[in-house]
Amino acid sequence: MSGNTFGTLFAVTNFGESHGPAIGCVIDGCPPGMDLAESDIQPDLDRRRPGTSRHVTQRQEADQVEILSGVHEGKTTGTPIALLIRNTDQRSKDYSDIAQVFRPGHADYTYLQKYGLRDPRGGGRASARLTAPMVAAGAVAKKWLREQYGTQFRGCMQQLGEIVIPFESWDHVPHNPFFAPIADVAHLESYMDALRKAGDSCGARVRVMATKVPVGLGEPLFDKLDADIAWAMMGINAVKGVEIGAGFASVTQRGTTHGDSPTPRGFRTNNAGGVLGGISTGQDLEVSIAIKPTSSIASPRETIDLKGESTQVVTKGRHDPCVGIRAAPIAEAMLALVVMDHALRQRAQNADVVSPVRAIPGAIS
Amino acid sequence: MSGNTFGTLFAVTNFGESHGPAIGCVIDGCPPGMDLAESDIQPDLDRRRPGTSRHVTQRQEADQVEILSGVHEGKTTGTPIALLIRNTDQRSKDYSDIAQVFRPGHADYTYLQKYGLRDPRGGGRASARLTAPMVAAGAVAKKWLREQYGTQFRGCMQQLGEIVIPFESWDHVPHNPFFAPIADVAHLESYMDALRKAGDSCGARVRVMATKVPVGLGEPLFDKLDADIAWAMMGINAVKGVEIGAGFASVTQRGTTHGDSPTPRGFRTNNAGGVLGGISTGQDLEVSIAIKPTSSIASPRETIDLKGESTQVVTKGRHDPCVGIRAAPIAEAMLALVVMDHALRQRAQNADVVSPVRAIPGAIS
Amino acid sequence: MSGNTFGTLFAVTNFGESHGPAIGCVIDGCPPGMDLAESDIQPDLDRRRPGTSRHVTQRQEADQVEILSGVHEGKTTGTPIALLIRNTDQRSKDYSDIAQVFRPGHADYTYLQKYGLRDPRGGGRASARLTAPMVAAGAVAKKWLREQYGTQFRGCMQQLGEIVIPFESWDHVPHNPFFAPIADVAHLESYMDALRKAGDSCGARVRVMATKVPVGLGEPLFDKLDADIAWAMMGINAVKGVEIGAGFASVTQRGTTHGDSPTPRGFRTNNAGGVLGGISTGQDLEVSIAIKPTSSIASPRETIDLKGESTQVVTKGRHDPCVGIRAAPIAEAMLALVVMDHALRQRAQNADVVSPVRAIPGAIS
Amino acid sequence: MSGNTFGTLFAVTNFGESHGPAIGCVIDGCPPGMDLAESDIQPDLDRRRPGTSRHVTQRQEADQVEILSGVHEGKTTGTPIALLIRNTDQRSKDYSDIAQVFRPGHADYTYLQKYGLRDPRGGGRASARLTAPMVAAGAVAKKWLREQYGTQFRGCMQQLGEIVIPFESWDHVPHNPFFAPIADVAHLESYMDALRKAGDSCGARVRVMATKVPVGLGEPLFDKLDADIAWAMMGINAVKGVEIGAGFASVTQRGTTHGDSPTPRGFRTNNAGGVLGGISTGQDLEVSIAIKPTSSIASPRETIDLKGESTQVVTKGRHDPCVGIRAAPIAEAMLALVVMDHALRQRAQNADVVSPVRAIPGAIS
Repeated sequence: MSGNTFGTLFAVTNFGESHGPAIGCVIDGCPPGMDLAESDIQPDLDRRRPGTSRHVTQRQEADQVEILSGVHEGKTTGTPIALLIRNTDQRSKDYSDIAQVFRPGHADYTYLQKYGLRDPRGGGRASARLTAPMVAAGAVAKKWLREQYGTQFRGCMQQLGEIVIPFESWDHVPHNPFFAPIADVAHLESYMDALRKAGDSCGARVRVMATKVPVGLGEPLFDKLDADIAWAMMGINAVKGVEIGAGFASVTQRGTTHGDSPTPRGFRTNNAGGVLGGISTGQDLEVSIAIKPTSSIASPRETIDLKGESTQVVTKGRHDPCVGIRAAPIAEAMLALVVMDHALRQRAQNADVVSPVRAIPGAIS
Repeated sequence: MSGNTFGTLFAVTNFGESHGPAIGCVIDGCPPGMDLAESDIQPDLDRRRPGTSRHVTQRQEADQVEILSGVHEGKTTGTPIALLIRNTDQRSKDYSDIAQVFRPGHADYTYLQKYGLRDPRGGGRASARLTAPMVAAGAVAKKWLREQYGTQFRGCMQQLGEIVIPFESWDHVPHNPFFAPIADVAHLESYMDALRKAGDSCGARVRVMATKVPVGLGEPLFDKLDADIAWAMMGINAVKGVEIGAGFASVTQRGTTHGDSPTPRGFRTNNAGGVLGGISTGQDLEVSIAIKPTSSIASPRETIDLKGESTQVVTKGRHDPCVGIRAAPIAEAMLALVVMDHALRQRAQNADVVSPVRAIPGAIS
Repeated sequence: MSGNTFGTLFAVTNFGESHGPAIGCVIDGCPPGMDLAESDIQPDLDRRRPGTSRHVTQRQEADQVEILSGVHEGKTTGTPIALLIRNTDQRSKDYSDIAQVFRPGHADYTYLQKYGLRDPRGGGRASARLTAPMVAAGAVAKKWLREQYGTQFRGCMQQLGEIVIPFESWDHVPHNPFFAPIADVAHLESYMDALRKAGDSCGARVRVMATKVPVGLGEPLFDKLDADIAWAMMGINAVKGVEIGAGFASVTQRGTTHGDSPTPRGFRTNNAGGVLGGISTGQDLEVSIAIKPTSSIASPRETIDLKGESTQVVTKGRHDPCVGIRAAPIAEAMLALVVMDHALRQRAQNADVVSPVRAIPGAIS
Repeated sequence: MSGNTFGTLFAVTNFGESHGPAIGCVIDGCPPGMDLAESDIQPDLDRRRPGTSRHVTQRQEADQVEILSGVHEGKTTGTPIALLIRNTDQRSKDYSDIAQVFRPGHADYTYLQKYGLRDPRGGGRASARLTAPMVAAGAVAKKWLREQYGTQFRGCMQQLGEIVIPFESWDHVPHNPFFAPIADVAHLESYMDALRKAGDSCGARVRVMATKVPVGLGEPLFDKLDADIAWAMMGINAVKGVEIGAGFASVTQRGTTHGDSPTPRGFRTNNAGGVLGGISTGQDLEVSIAIKPTSSIASPRETIDLKGESTQVVTKGRHDPCVGIRAAPIAEAMLALVVMDHALRQRAQNADVVSPVRAIPGAIS
């Protein structure tokens, strides 16, 4: 096991490289009896898919998913669900010139040191393309959680480079290529156009959240719900920071203000972000992540070659100038996978538990 | 398995409650042949120990560790190392009145919903006291890593409530009760005195780092070194945010500035915080965490009781007004445990690897 | 993780050495709300305890268990249950002379090769004494399964050396030191007396079974219920063979006779031993194990010393001349732990399943 | 995780159903830098393949394996190796009539109880067809172990129904359809012909062994090498018993004869079967398994239908009359996977160990 399996009971094993014949995953532990078809999975893959606007990589991949196992007569059988996505638009010649140098901020160097060799085509295993199978697996988790508890997952962009994006409405998110919760994204478009012209890239901040999360999910000591969320989020390519609830703002809060007071009508606030002591409160899960600027850029940068000598590198190929733009569906999927895993873990140990107290309603708005 | 085991190959299973007879852990997977005695572990426990200044809880616990197994004639044998710490200063009567209400920001409510019952004495399993066995296990990991690679772990406070603490020198850290890297902590003392008088608590930001980390540690897809660090840090009581390297500052960085250029003399910068593609670069690991204000405070707050009716709660007992003050040795231990686990994982798969390129020296200073 | 944790969801981490200060275990994943006290565990430990007849080792250990955590006001809390058993009757000088040679059939040699050093006192970690914590953990599993499903576990001796022991009644088992299901054990006693006088040891065959096992337990591909049982049994010291149901007798059976026909009144036979396709049928689980003769015997045997030179070895110390005599409660505990783990795994994935068919009653008798 | 992953560090996740579009597996943890192509895997698949003699199922499957990931320019990269085998000769109509009844000795009933639904086509997930991906993964493990240590794996039939097959030579095994180590198999052929004509099936006993196994593999307490072997073997379809070394014969052995005396020239005997205290001795691993008669037979048998009413069942379709005939390559693969996993586990913890004593040569012959 080299870290390619996600989850304990709803376990997703991911495989593939950016320019190999196929990518995919095997989901082990899905409850049986749920209706499932490719059409339940494809919409989320389409949201994450490259080539859909001029602001993302121009690689054209249909990302058509095929269910190879685990479904019989349209229902999950409880056995492993293998999902396959064939790669179709590899242009490996694009990468021949970067096989001899290390891109600053890229995994080129660390892969070579770890394994003694690497697949340089499209970043190989380090490519963000490997998030596609997670989005597919996340769609399965989302469906089960929605049918079981009504849980919903949503993500949006909060900040693009220096541009802070106010939250207007979830309704705007599907209508622009930035997953921005605002109606007018013209300034984001011109920002990205200028960046692309400059051969540079920028970072982003993305928010992801879940509603109707059952209370009681999460293991209290290490596999805390928030710890597993942090692990899942930091595992997404280019993520450098994770916050739950008030996050870093809690440093300057007082105990008298940070604590979310429960009332008969619900919690007054949600500084906790839906988790206390590692266990879900039933409030919305609120997560925010920092995504670094893409390391594959067209501007020349100082680096060294395989012999350790000084040189410069310019990355051609097709790359996202802001990898954060397509991060929302990925982060949603990762959050859904964490919640799903803990939903199964919870009933393993505590299926019989009858709480002596009523559940507190969600936050007062 | 309910999330009480930390790590895959260097696996630490933690047990105990704040006011039970004992706390402790079992370390499974420690390499054999290392000299080990209680005296190797006790100093780190003493750094974390309560009751050492007026700014932390006044509970008096010697936190004397006993090695029950896994060591023969002063050397580790490769078999499980069980570590036991007896609780001695429990005052459970302090907690009788809070068993009927939910403290805002505390795990009271979530434990009750998850398990149907809870041990209210001192927070039971949710107490930060359970970090003591991790500090003990971390001391074992630190020793092995130091002897094997020269790795060193250090932590310090970066911010106490609103007070940002500039970094002056690691030399100051052991000489004040705040783990602050500054010579003069008078303003921190008066800040804490005022807070305590007000019956309130505050948050903190803590930095933890490691030097001489071998290159190549971390599994690239999910068990990324930074993902596992995020998991470990978010698993510490009261942590609400984690950053690696530039963290949230990378949102506003450009690709041209964020990427740490390798040169023949070393990396120019360390925005990556020592991890690229989930794998250590050999640079310093740099981590920063946000710690929320303690939820057990003496000020009255709105809440509900077990019947769901409105009431107020005041926490008496003995509590840390800023749980971040003692967090540095805890975060160091957690970081050491992550690095240790990955050091063993690395040689499991890649013991034979000879990299075709030279290791890049640490950052240029 | 070096193989000292048993189980996936009901996970028991074992620690200790034969002559160290203590042995014990940590149970992680026990459902909350079950009444539990030391008195629920001690009876099974007493059944396994050494020194209770002249046919077993004369080492005197009270094997008093102490619950260190996970129980509050007499009920399990869902947090780890740490169990501690202090060693009291170590006589380590007995072993000084065997530290320089390898006992044939003993783990002396393999421990030294694996770890480069070993604790020779009483076999160290290789001692069958380490089954005591498993018996303790098994008692917790047995209690939960009994309360939940009425499951019962029983073990008895089937063969002692050449003496095949017919099955008369479970009622006899507690009334003789051999766990033999017969009323008169005089011939077993004289057999053992002669063996002891000869300074030799013998093997045994032990049967262990469970009644009222829920249907549906076991994962179909690798963690089959019978595969996990085989793993658990082969993991007991000195076990060299495991059979489920008809076992090796199935080699000469025909398909027309081996298959257990279901009828409206129950299965006609139980050649399957309660498992089909890795999943429990609801019939009795039937397991049989082969235990080799004890390797520590008083007769001189050919061996080599640490320098690789020919020599002889005679084991003094206190040893069981037939380690199979005390195996029944150990095998019961291991079986209970496997069933317990699968009971939790089953409800994790399949808690909502409503089978479209009625459960078939147990075997027709 | 529902038991579809085999191994801890060399982890193989299996997916697929007998009559679904494809079967396959993902190998996670393979060391990098090993030459690997489909042609390294196909020969073992061909040995296991159905339809190669009249004594096995007549289903025609080429079992062509495709490597989807983890190999770049002919070398393993250290990332997951996904192996795909398309199903081509499904005749699902054969199974329509058995979807309404339970075959005695088959998993029909237990799957339905566990999951509430089942894929009846060809046994679905319960089919022995799912051993093909394990044979493929085993070929990868075998190659690495052979190159690293010279380890070799071999299997042969020891008994077919009542016919005990003496061991003549490994050279005969590839030259007859029974994997029998004898030159003349005419009596086995006529035995099988008669059995097939009678519409019945028979059991078998198969031996599997490994030579040049490194000393020191295996975790001493639970994940003993022999325990993991027992788990792997009992996990093969239809296996009902497992022996290591002397196995059940050790019940009647004396300690003076069972213990394998080490000498300067090697061990005198191998009753241990290559494992002491759960750790490999460096001698040959010797394993024997009992395989029950196939449950899908053409003779009518008593059973019940889905309504619980008495009826009879006759299985048509295409089935192996003795599933043990093709078991040798499967058992070899499973043994190789266990040894491979422990080889990686061993160097994780003990890479630095230098044993103070010389390795004892293999058994004296």
